[in-house]
Amino acid sequence: MSFANEHPNLILTKDGVEKIRANLGNVPLFDESLAAIKQEVDAEIAAGIFTPIPKDFSGGYTHDRHKLNFFVAQKAAMLYQILEDDKYAKYVRDMLFQYEAMYQDLPLHPQERSYARGKIFWQCLNDSNWLVYMAQAYDAIYYYLTENERDALEDNLFRPFADFISLENPKFYNRVHNHSTWGIAAVGMIGLVMNDEELIQRALYGIEDDGLEIGGKDNDGGTIKVEGQRKGFYANLEEPFSPDGYYTEGPYYQRYAMYPFLILALAIENARPELKVLQHKDNVLLKGVNALMNLSDADGEFFAINDAQKGMSYHKESLVTAVNVAYHYGNKNPKLLSIVQKQGKVLLDESGLSAAMAIRDGKAKPFTKKSINLSDGKDGDEGGIGILRYGNEALTLVFKYAAQGLSHGHYDKLSYSLHEKGDEVLQDYGLARFVNIEQKGGGNYLKENTTWAKTTIAHNTLSQDQTKHFNGNYDIASQHHSELYFFDDSNENVQVVSATESNAYPGTTMHRTMALIKDEHFEKAFMLDIMKVSSASEHQYDFPFYFLGQVLDMNFQYESPKSLHPLGEANGYQHLYVEGKGKPSNNSTQFSWLNKGKYYTLSTVTQNSDELLFTRIGANDPEFNLRREAAIMIRRNDADTTFVSVVEPHGSYSPVSELSSNPKSNIATVELVLDTQAYTAVNITDLAGNTQLFILANDDASGAAKHEVKINGENYSFTGPYFYQ
Amino acid sequence: MSFANEHPNLILTKDGVEKIRANLGNVPLFDESLAAIKQEVDAEIAAGIFTPIPKDFSGGYTHDRHKLNFFVAQKAAMLYQILEDDKYAKYVRDMLFQYEAMYQDLPLHPQERSYARGKIFWQCLNDSNWLVYMAQAYDAIYYYLTENERDALEDNLFRPFADFISLENPKFYNRVHNHSTWGIAAVGMIGLVMNDEELIQRALYGIEDDGLEIGGKDNDGGTIKVEGQRKGFYANLEEPFSPDGYYTEGPYYQRYAMYPFLILALAIENARPELKVLQHKDNVLLKGVNALMNLSDADGEFFAINDAQKGMSYHKESLVTAVNVAYHYGNKNPKLLSIVQKQGKVLLDESGLSAAMAIRDGKAKPFTKKSINLSDGKDGDEGGIGILRYGNEALTLVFKYAAQGLSHGHYDKLSYSLHEKGDEVLQDYGLARFVNIEQKGGGNYLKENTTWAKTTIAHNTLSQDQTKHFNGNYDIASQHHSELYFFDDSNENVQVVSATESNAYPGTTMHRTMALIKDEHFEKAFMLDIMKVSSASEHQYDFPFYFLGQVLDMNFQYESPKSLHPLGEANGYQHLYVEGKGKPSNNSTQFSWLNKGKYYTLSTVTQNSDELLFTRIGANDPEFNLRREAAIMIRRNDADTTFVSVVEPHGSYSPVSELSSNPKSNIATVELVLDTQAYTAVNITDLAGNTQLFILANDDASGAAKHEVKINGENYSFTGPYFYQ
Repeated sequence: MSFANEHPNLILTKDGVEKIRANLGNVPLFDESLAAIKQEVDAEIAAGIFTPIPKDFSGGYTHDRHKLNFFVAQKAAMLYQILEDDKYAKYVRDMLFQYEAMYQDLPLHPQERSYARGKIFWQCLNDSNWLVYMAQAYDAIYYYLTENERDALEDNLFRPFADFISLENPKFYNRVHNHSTWGIAAVGMIGLVMNDEELIQRALYGIEDDGLEIGGKDNDGGTIKVEGQRKGFYANLEEPFSPDGYYTEGPYYQRYAMYPFLILALAIENARPELKVLQHKDNVLLKGVNALMNLSDADGEFFAINDAQKGMSYHKESLVTAVNVAYHYGNKNPKLLSIVQKQGKVLLDESGLSAAMAIRDGKAKPFTKKSINLSDGKDGDEGGIGILRYGNEALTLVFKYAAQGLSHGHYDKLSYSLHEKGDEVLQDYGLARFVNIEQKGGGNYLKENTTWAKTTIAHNTLSQDQTKHFNGNYDIASQHHSELYFFDDSNENVQVVSATESNAYPGTTMHRTMALIKDEHFEKAFMLDIMKVSSASEHQYDFPFYFLGQVLDMNFQYESPKSLHPLGEANGYQHLYVEGKGKPSNNSTQFSWLNKGKYYTLSTVTQNSDELLFTRIGANDPEFNLRREAAIMIRRNDADTTFVSVVEPHGSYSPVSELSSNPKSNIATVELVLDTQAYTAVNITDLAGNTQLFILANDDASGAAKHEVKINGENYSFTGPYFYQ
Repeated sequence: MSFANEHPNLILTKDGVEKIRANLGNVPLFDESLAAIKQEVDAEIAAGIFTPIPKDFSGGYTHDRHKLNFFVAQKAAMLYQILEDDKYAKYVRDMLFQYEAMYQDLPLHPQERSYARGKIFWQCLNDSNWLVYMAQAYDAIYYYLTENERDALEDNLFRPFADFISLENPKFYNRVHNHSTWGIAAVGMIGLVMNDEELIQRALYGIEDDGLEIGGKDNDGGTIKVEGQRKGFYANLEEPFSPDGYYTEGPYYQRYAMYPFLILALAIENARPELKVLQHKDNVLLKGVNALMNLSDADGEFFAINDAQKGMSYHKESLVTAVNVAYHYGNKNPKLLSIVQKQGKVLLDESGLSAAMAIRDGKAKPFTKKSINLSDGKDGDEGGIGILRYGNEALTLVFKYAAQGLSHGHYDKLSYSLHEKGDEVLQDYGLARFVNIEQKGGGNYLKENTTWAKTTIAHNTLSQDQTKHFNGNYDIASQHHSELYFFDDSNENVQVVSATESNAYPGTTMHRTMALIKDEHFEKAFMLDIMKVSSASEHQYDFPFYFLGQVLDMNFQYESPKSLHPLGEANGYQHLYVEGKGKPSNNSTQFSWLNKGKYYTLSTVTQNSDELLFTRIGANDPEFNLRREAAIMIRRNDADTTFVSVVEPHGSYSPVSELSSNPKSNIATVELVLDTQAYTAVNITDLAGNTQLFILANDDASGAAKHEVKINGENYSFTGPYFYQ
């Protein structure tokens, strides 16, 4: 055996504890974190230990109580190590023995919804959460227990628990999926504490013969087993993470999957440093932390790519772990310290101490987020997420040209969201779920997640013939991804990302180019959006803008129905009411709105035959599961066509001063002045009569390629894929 | 002449300026305020002086430019006095002469919407704003100007300006109305600077013979002249302010009307101290500041009583004046200083210096808002506003049983809003207007203000037969007010306000009693609402709850329509879509929702024949002028009936921790256990089986009255109007 048989050695180590004890009282952020946890744990100890018979879904009493138990036990065990007060070890021991007494006789959890039911919780996933934390607790009080006590816990609780979530639930355990990462971390961590080589190997490499058939779906519609499926820690580390550290399900789930990855990696690092897991795949785990930080808005809230509950941010407890570990075990990046400062607390381990000491010593630097292109896919060649940022997040564009994103993926190729500082301007709806709120479907995914949130029409991208991309077929969607055309953030004033998608609608190719442009003639940076669609046959194209805020005005006429009817029957359309229907009165259709004290205007090139629709989410939603939010949508029947739009933030309004500054668009017209197979050119004329010209080379993204284009009698020559002047 | 002919002597005084100069650099908040204003004014001086030909509505360029001019000129003039730098005086002089050159030839403003059009702005109201500020500017640079310059300004600008807004616009000037207060202040202040006795008398006592006919309406539907109408400063001070300092139009307009009152009073105080205007009507002006502070939520935002734009707060510039003046000229209340601290700036005059010095010297005390009952009406006998607060604003109830509130009043007798800290839980909709946003109807009142915001059904009160209180007739409504039954905040754990209304629907009497109760069996304080309705004949009663947030669940069945239709044809009903229609399945109907991370449950006593409606605002709103917000509504056909409801805040939810605490109601049943002419009794049974009994004596509110009531065979005896146990 290569690792030292001593305890604690999982997250806390003997060395780490000694350092912590030596520095107590001298590291403000660490001391505050310790005091806060001590207060919380002391209150729980005073309240007593409760291990009710499992009964409820998430949000219900028994679920929440058991969840609180493992959080508190882990914290109490840390306190035992740091403060050397036996009352904390006794509390953990007593709690563990209450579980030991009940576990062997526990049937499957009575709630039957999960494809992999747990015993303490309604799904194995939560049981695995429990073991990840309890393994840490056990490790920290290991030597407080007698050998008999340890044997009893291991034989009657931990080993059967680990076997249950793995051998007895291979459909949960033996996948590449965020669920599996928790299972693997749980088995691996308790294996390391128990020094049980079989469990350790099962964590690293999965179950060899799982007896699962190919196919079969989980509750989210994800396929449980595909041909040639890999499994275990290495597979889960290698496959869903791209070389840039992007996790294919999106940041909401990356945040969830990172914790077990990091905590297990850390445990292995402590116990078996020779495996160098933290350095595996070119430091992908530490890169993942950096990617995740970059997948957040100016307030630290994660972008709602795929299934994602809005409001989740890097203030989450598990992100404290991620950032502390990335700082301490990475290259001590001082910019991470400013995030630790915003989090306002640290882990009670060596990495937390390290971060807190560095902050005390004035080493923190601002974490300034820049534009970044994050590849998707195991090898980084399955599309990606392009994030353009202007002016310290004054304007941020999140452009999705990624792979499907496993079972939490949405059908929205080439979609985007737009953000001004911490406020979403054009939204990605996120998921349809109230996580852990029992009254809402047990806190689980609601059926509207499938019928609305995952659909194409729920997103800021092109819908064809009222269908979903890939017809909403998960297996087909999982075989494809969009292709990056180019990403260029070399000039802060004109940043461009461009990608193509040719599989979402067979026979139709979409090429979308999005730019953030700061022009001297404009108060703020604006977004330019060129969606070039090519198809052999005519289709109905719907092109929505999910604006948030209050409608101000527009330059077209529309009719308002007396009664509201759904826009369609299926594919998400059944959830949209039509609040207005109009026709362009101008080739530059304009629409403006106000959101959180800021003005926005959409200027978009329209044709006389276009229809303009005002829609509102909420039809066929009898349980009020959806937010009543709006969109403006262009409907066009055509084969080849190009949608060109500018979204222009401007001015501000305060309900306190009641001053309205710069409330109107600066754009007179937007024109598509050239649109051939080779080139697309857009002219933006502002109110002062200045013209801004953007030319895109459609066929050659090479930075060295030279282009000559004639537009309205003028010759333009440029090098590289675009021209702006 | 009793006042000293020296300058400045209006807001700044010679003594005040000397004190300020002597303390420069030693009073942090004053120095910061000065630096901020200097920066702003210097930037404006650098940009140049612009006095465009008047053209736009509020929100448009010429409006905003002229508005900025008077703000900046006043500030520049203060800087001239304090810093003794001639460039500030020169700037003000040059600007005034640009106005002098244009004023005599200016026609009426080209926008014709106002009942009293201005010259520089579209309404006399804004012209008066201009003169209030410019009078201060003129006073401060008086001795910088030559006598010839002063003569030119007075003859060609100030005197004709003052005559225009008064003599030429008596319908604007000669009323008791917030518009008039600005006109009066403008005329009075320029009169004081010019030492023009005629103008001063016109300000104090109005225009004797105004030639106005009885009747005639302004743009808001207010009557311009009623029989025996008083006018001038004293009338406007005496009539709309109650002895408690409540301004009858509500806090949004009180905030607006306070400034000219205070600034004129201050100017008179400086020039003619013997008039003791600040002490007039038992210090009503200083009481008004205190009332206004109390009419705000935990974030300092004013309650949306009557016409009110949400978000307006005591951070408004004019409230800085109000609080500074109230502090300095009042009894130096140290609690006001904590509001000055929150405002973060002070006036550049003696009162601002005084407040800033007191803060520097550590004198500030928290402004802890308590429950307060504010009478309405000149003599305090026309109803009022009862505000109940529990636990440092953890829960706040704003109960309206006031008079009509002049032309900005809404038809909502016995309505309320409920607030948890700074978040509105059950809302008052406020106004339908985007103040100063030109795109939205020139920034003026929208027609939906009349068709929706002012209606009865837009409020949390009783609507009968789909009509408005007083049938929406302003003249009739103006003759009536509700009557206080009692207000008792002596026990913080059971606070009660109760009032009656017998004129809103002739033949029907409403008696509403609302309580905030903190019971040991409940996590948080809850609201109890008893609305006892008595009528000789049967009516359709609608009883809505305008909750804000997301629907969670309910204990009744309802049908959801496939298409949304308006609930009615008129009186606001045409703006409500029906999103669901159901029947109680229980005598205790329950409905819960989630708002800003906090849970709420409504438990209300229902009858089998009741109808339960889910409504959403937005029907017949083709210009998207209304917010798409929801209500749950009880519809009952009856003659005498009592609506009994509990609104129970509980628990919390965080999208970061995803922890859901205490998400369910603690109430098993709410029962109306007795309801006679003399007594109404409500029993609340919680989940643990504890019963909470509330008994109300309907006929005798005397604190000394003794009552004996038999309920379900038990005898209860109590003294005073209610019993709770």
